[in-house]
Amino acid sequence: MASGEDSIISRYFKPLATDPGAFGLTDDAAVLKADGFDIVVNTDAIVEGVHFLPDDPPDTIARKALRVNLSDLAAKGAAPAGFVVTLALRETDHPWLAEFARGLGEDAFAFGCALLGGDTVSTPGPLMISITAFGRVPAGQMVRRRGAAVGDRVVVTGSIGDAALGLAVLRGGDVAAALADHPALRDALVSRYRVPQPRSALAQVVRDHASAAMDVSDGLAGDLAKLCGVSGVSADINADAVPLSDAVKFLVGQGLTGINAIVAGGDDYEILCTIPDRRFDAFARDAAHAGVAATTIGVIVEGSLTPRLLDSQGSAIALQRMSYSHF
Amino acid sequence: MASGEDSIISRYFKPLATDPGAFGLTDDAAVLKADGFDIVVNTDAIVEGVHFLPDDPPDTIARKALRVNLSDLAAKGAAPAGFVVTLALRETDHPWLAEFARGLGEDAFAFGCALLGGDTVSTPGPLMISITAFGRVPAGQMVRRRGAAVGDRVVVTGSIGDAALGLAVLRGGDVAAALADHPALRDALVSRYRVPQPRSALAQVVRDHASAAMDVSDGLAGDLAKLCGVSGVSADINADAVPLSDAVKFLVGQGLTGINAIVAGGDDYEILCTIPDRRFDAFARDAAHAGVAATTIGVIVEGSLTPRLLDSQGSAIALQRMSYSHF
Repeated sequence: MASGEDSIISRYFKPLATDPGAFGLTDDAAVLKADGFDIVVNTDAIVEGVHFLPDDPPDTIARKALRVNLSDLAAKGAAPAGFVVTLALRETDHPWLAEFARGLGEDAFAFGCALLGGDTVSTPGPLMISITAFGRVPAGQMVRRRGAAVGDRVVVTGSIGDAALGLAVLRGGDVAAALADHPALRDALVSRYRVPQPRSALAQVVRDHASAAMDVSDGLAGDLAKLCGVSGVSADINADAVPLSDAVKFLVGQGLTGINAIVAGGDDYEILCTIPDRRFDAFARDAAHAGVAATTIGVIVEGSLTPRLLDSQGSAIALQRMSYSHF
Repeated sequence: MASGEDSIISRYFKPLATDPGAFGLTDDAAVLKADGFDIVVNTDAIVEGVHFLPDDPPDTIARKALRVNLSDLAAKGAAPAGFVVTLALRETDHPWLAEFARGLGEDAFAFGCALLGGDTVSTPGPLMISITAFGRVPAGQMVRRRGAAVGDRVVVTGSIGDAALGLAVLRGGDVAAALADHPALRDALVSRYRVPQPRSALAQVVRDHASAAMDVSDGLAGDLAKLCGVSGVSADINADAVPLSDAVKFLVGQGLTGINAIVAGGDDYEILCTIPDRRFDAFARDAAHAGVAATTIGVIVEGSLTPRLLDSQGSAIALQRMSYSHF
């Protein structure tokens, strides 16, 4: 009776549909209760060979597909409410699907974001996973990109540049060779590329204190330029203040990367936000309480120019590129 | 400044983002207001070479991508509220994108379902469009697949089998040859394949009267079996009652198709619903008022067997297959 698609869904994905509104994936659609909140909607897709590698472990592919969306929800100040997934598959590879569903289910549980529904389609092309994730915010309180004001501090969570270098490691070459004897640093970078760490714990802190926010997915420099552009401001960023992990510092020391590549690399999935000066102490306290490292890297200034990246002498560093583009 | 992806979005899709919650596509996420309703969520993807053909007009590809989702919302009794789209593109083909966006925008306007956001990704594989659409229903009133009861009438809208034969026309062969001198019939079938007609006008009627409903997308026989399965019932369908268009009747007369292919063909995007006998007169009146043809094709019966398709003598017709499967 059941077609191939139905059996894939019932075998691998039904156990993940724990929200009553998913009806155990036995219906055409799901119900998302708003309960008086606004629903925040975000959609991001990942494609084999572009956003992940064909031999990445299937559970990490699933985690990345969900987490890139959870990262956006966190930056918007939203609490996860559920997601739908479209899976474009070349074939029905049962061991692969089992591992994919396991990773997806573990993350859905860990982040409190249950599967509401989805679609599986057959494709002769590369594997693709498109997720639309939903969050809830009190009415009118989604944190926008627009809203940064002159004098606000520019803050970024975690560390920048790890994921792009993790991809460089997986591609081999100089970076991989330099880390051959440093497995812990190597693994830290690869892990950041394969499995982003969405800053969901900071969602409410961002909502309480940030004047503007977005997640850093295409490169810190380019993403900050977008935030400034829509806010009608510019920014001065101290290059030395950009937070770097031990692994990235090591590679900087080896001359294998530099500030330009670091701020233009993609896949960071950190939160970039602007905090009014008067709120900064409260923000810093609440961020520390949430267990998320947050670093001030600069200040919002007047103007419509591209944000400047300044060296320790206060001179602007010319950037060759600002972000990663798929086109 | 703007990356290729950003320029595609601002050039082609920003004009479609007419809902205030879309923020003109200048943010990472959108806000969907629930206004006390339940949000119905549906996701369906279409893939080049599987759900549409590479040389289909781009505006019809966009319309189909949206309409297959609108069809689900209608069957669930939901009023359209908005959608997000993921577009996987091989290249930036500006004339193609302009026509695609035109078709998408015209349908979004016509069906009152504005673009809320999306993602464009690059793929070396076939074009793929994944849409997640949102609808609103009064709390607790989404029409389920579950709910059909013994004695309920089985009703289907419009006509069945056109789209699958439209695809057969586009593939050439006997069906295309038989219609060579009948351009109106030919065009009617191709049009049903390329541009489904979601029964949005019937959404409230379904909500008011149906005990269960779903849209017919994979084949009437298989979809009815799913509805019966989750409702814990079976059904007897009169083959002669299945509504056929003039074009399909012509091909039946030519011996080029038959009831099995008709009830197992995909892409109908009609509403299949069950109506309690006591509500049928009101349902028929309201459906007529909505301008949607609705035909009783059978009755829900006890049991857990696959629904039976009966000929004019009341004998069961053995079906070779029940639905179209992509796997």
